[in-house]
Amino acid sequence: MADSHLDELFALLRFPSVSTDPARKADVARCADWIVAKLRALGLKTMLHPTAGHPIVVARNTHRPERRTVLIYGHYDVQPVDEPERAPGEPADPNKHWITPPFAPEVRDGVLYGRGSADNKGQFFAHVCGLAETLREHGDLPVNLILLIEGEEEIGSSHLEPFLTAHRDDLRCDLIAISDTGMVAPGVPTFTYGLRGIAALELRVTGPASDLHSGIYGGAVANPAMAVARLLASLHDAQGHVVVPGFYDEVAPLAEWEREAWSHLPLHDAAVLQITGAPALFGEAGYTALERIWARPTVEVNGLGGGFQGVGSKTVIPREAFAKLTCRLVPNQEPAAIVAKVQAHLAAHCPPGVHLEILPGHGGQPYLTDPRSPDGRAAQQALRRAFPGSDLALIREGGSIPIVNTFKRILGAETLLLGLALPDCRAHAPNENFPVANFEGGIRLNRALLEELAAT
Amino acid sequence: MADSHLDELFALLRFPSVSTDPARKADVARCADWIVAKLRALGLKTMLHPTAGHPIVVARNTHRPERRTVLIYGHYDVQPVDEPERAPGEPADPNKHWITPPFAPEVRDGVLYGRGSADNKGQFFAHVCGLAETLREHGDLPVNLILLIEGEEEIGSSHLEPFLTAHRDDLRCDLIAISDTGMVAPGVPTFTYGLRGIAALELRVTGPASDLHSGIYGGAVANPAMAVARLLASLHDAQGHVVVPGFYDEVAPLAEWEREAWSHLPLHDAAVLQITGAPALFGEAGYTALERIWARPTVEVNGLGGGFQGVGSKTVIPREAFAKLTCRLVPNQEPAAIVAKVQAHLAAHCPPGVHLEILPGHGGQPYLTDPRSPDGRAAQQALRRAFPGSDLALIREGGSIPIVNTFKRILGAETLLLGLALPDCRAHAPNENFPVANFEGGIRLNRALLEELAAT
Repeated sequence: MADSHLDELFALLRFPSVSTDPARKADVARCADWIVAKLRALGLKTMLHPTAGHPIVVARNTHRPERRTVLIYGHYDVQPVDEPERAPGEPADPNKHWITPPFAPEVRDGVLYGRGSADNKGQFFAHVCGLAETLREHGDLPVNLILLIEGEEEIGSSHLEPFLTAHRDDLRCDLIAISDTGMVAPGVPTFTYGLRGIAALELRVTGPASDLHSGIYGGAVANPAMAVARLLASLHDAQGHVVVPGFYDEVAPLAEWEREAWSHLPLHDAAVLQITGAPALFGEAGYTALERIWARPTVEVNGLGGGFQGVGSKTVIPREAFAKLTCRLVPNQEPAAIVAKVQAHLAAHCPPGVHLEILPGHGGQPYLTDPRSPDGRAAQQALRRAFPGSDLALIREGGSIPIVNTFKRILGAETLLLGLALPDCRAHAPNENFPVANFEGGIRLNRALLEELAAT
Repeated sequence: MADSHLDELFALLRFPSVSTDPARKADVARCADWIVAKLRALGLKTMLHPTAGHPIVVARNTHRPERRTVLIYGHYDVQPVDEPERAPGEPADPNKHWITPPFAPEVRDGVLYGRGSADNKGQFFAHVCGLAETLREHGDLPVNLILLIEGEEEIGSSHLEPFLTAHRDDLRCDLIAISDTGMVAPGVPTFTYGLRGIAALELRVTGPASDLHSGIYGGAVANPAMAVARLLASLHDAQGHVVVPGFYDEVAPLAEWEREAWSHLPLHDAAVLQITGAPALFGEAGYTALERIWARPTVEVNGLGGGFQGVGSKTVIPREAFAKLTCRLVPNQEPAAIVAKVQAHLAAHCPPGVHLEILPGHGGQPYLTDPRSPDGRAAQQALRRAFPGSDLALIREGGSIPIVNTFKRILGAETLLLGLALPDCRAHAPNENFPVANFEGGIRLNRALLEELAAT
């Protein structure tokens, strides 16, 4: 690998392109501009498309009708940093605090640390570097390429769908490739044929007109923070099974061959326990950790708040409290239907004496594709060439890439999910990381993939 | 009233003496210094006593053995401001935001607004102004006076008890008077013969070693925010009755004369509903709002937090979550025993897959005194003189003044609770306020009280 590939990835990681934070809008835009300049320098015809949110970058080589057309997708936006403040003299805890600042990338022991290193800058940029190498050596690519890099993946890609619809003809392609998922272990080529969907909602409970003194009024009015707790506690039974009526109605059962294949993966329960650092595994009875994550739906609290948050105590009944929820969905659950069911359940369980408001958020459908299709087999061959020496793993993933379904619906193309991140990549958490070896493997993957797909 | 009394109260209110905030330590100290200078200027022998926390101010006149000794207590520390940030252009909501800054006092329509105006600077300073008037007119007071003003009432008065023990002989007195409670309605002289106690605890739940991606791991590990919700929801039944085993074992039932007397007070349920602005009243069946507040114990969440708190969404399983709880206690509940019961209940209800840590906080016993004692009757007569024209109300209160029991135990003296704040004073909330008329009445009360007690 040319040193310049890594240097350029460093430059890309230095942009704090946090899409959810309005204060970072200019940083997100500067990041997009940098990508445009890089792709133009490779000789690709590159356009920056503004949206009502963050811009979309589209690049292409000169298309020739006799070649297949491959769309490679990635995103340049990243998750917030969200690091708790450290007290003076408190040592950095790598589980809570960034060892090196999130936007000052650094390689330690062969691993690159920084926000976006795995999700998704490191992964999509490996493809860009693969394209650069092929173009430098051959002056052209073996396929018609469309490279589409968006800036709103972490906030639901809301402007991508209208963009795809508006540019449907220009974006027509035979298939789509995305590296935004994971490998089951270092060096193990991994093909992902399923993803969970997502359905977000936020609940807000209000009570008294103002924070009240909990001595002067406590006992006579309902406490909104307690009401939020009771609402959340109503969602599961004690074993973690969701008790929202109808929640599991559309869930497709696991196939026997999947349970069998997954049981041989190195990601057994003990490995999941070790990676998460949780005191114990916890979840629905009758499923392994992988089965719970890859093939079972969830309702999770992502954030919870209300009342006094500071040091010490403040004896109030808070006027309001909130919880941010996301459901992870599996085939054949529909985000809108699930939100409606959770909403109805919460409304039915709202305690007296408070007002409940539910704000539906972004949603994305689950995805399942056939790993035995010709393009699936070609992609698996490219993965084996990029990561020789280990058996290929056929997996689903627990995360959501809602746009995979959007691509299928609007462009009519299937997506190949060719993940490069490791299970301990700390995506969405402090000390997100990506091994340099995986970045290098990603560059090899891009080159092999275009060759294999050109021959399919 | 001399204008200078109000001017001086303004100066006192300008100190941001927030005792719970380590960053305000110097402001708290400056406030104490100002009080010392004021009391010395009145000719009282005044000492500033440092503690490991905030200092205690003690002032006295020249004591003569033939006179009774009265200790007047107050506190110069205040609650935090804790105002949510306003979005650009968002109008100020008086239930959430300060209309004028908390430490820039202002009189509007005869009402003084500012943090500490009611709790407790405005109330104790009315006594100081009463002393000033008596001293100016007569050159002496009718009793031996001890004025004790502390700076840690809002954080549990932890250094007051060792101080009382160390200075027990110097502080010996016949009785204690405190204005840190309320009047049932404007102009209604109100004698408080009971207070609730308090027992604080904080619970912290930890799970995975780091925030986890809720897609990549959701379903396989327990969510600490959900665990906190389930723990809180385990504390009450659906009607708000506490289900912690043994919680009500020591609760003294309401006397029939109390229920009868309280039923005639202007603070009926509709008034409590109106003052709180809650959508409805809520609490234990079989009790009026006043009975719930004054004579029944509670468990309240004062603060709740975990996971993503910002704008937008962040799909994590948080590594930890917390809740700050306080119980309000009634005779004859003991704080330590209640904390132990709540702690045992929470430990028994902790869901699997997480670690629960419980941090006991400050505590204070409930208080009940006999309103028909000679000193009780003298105080009631002083209240009638200060606020003529309305029948006197005999009440309990829902708040806690733990040091009332400490005084009784260490100094052997009963406490007279002579409240001056109104029900809508917004203590502990934005736009805390105190009518100028009540401040003036408090000055009259101090003068009448010392006369009545001298003659008892």
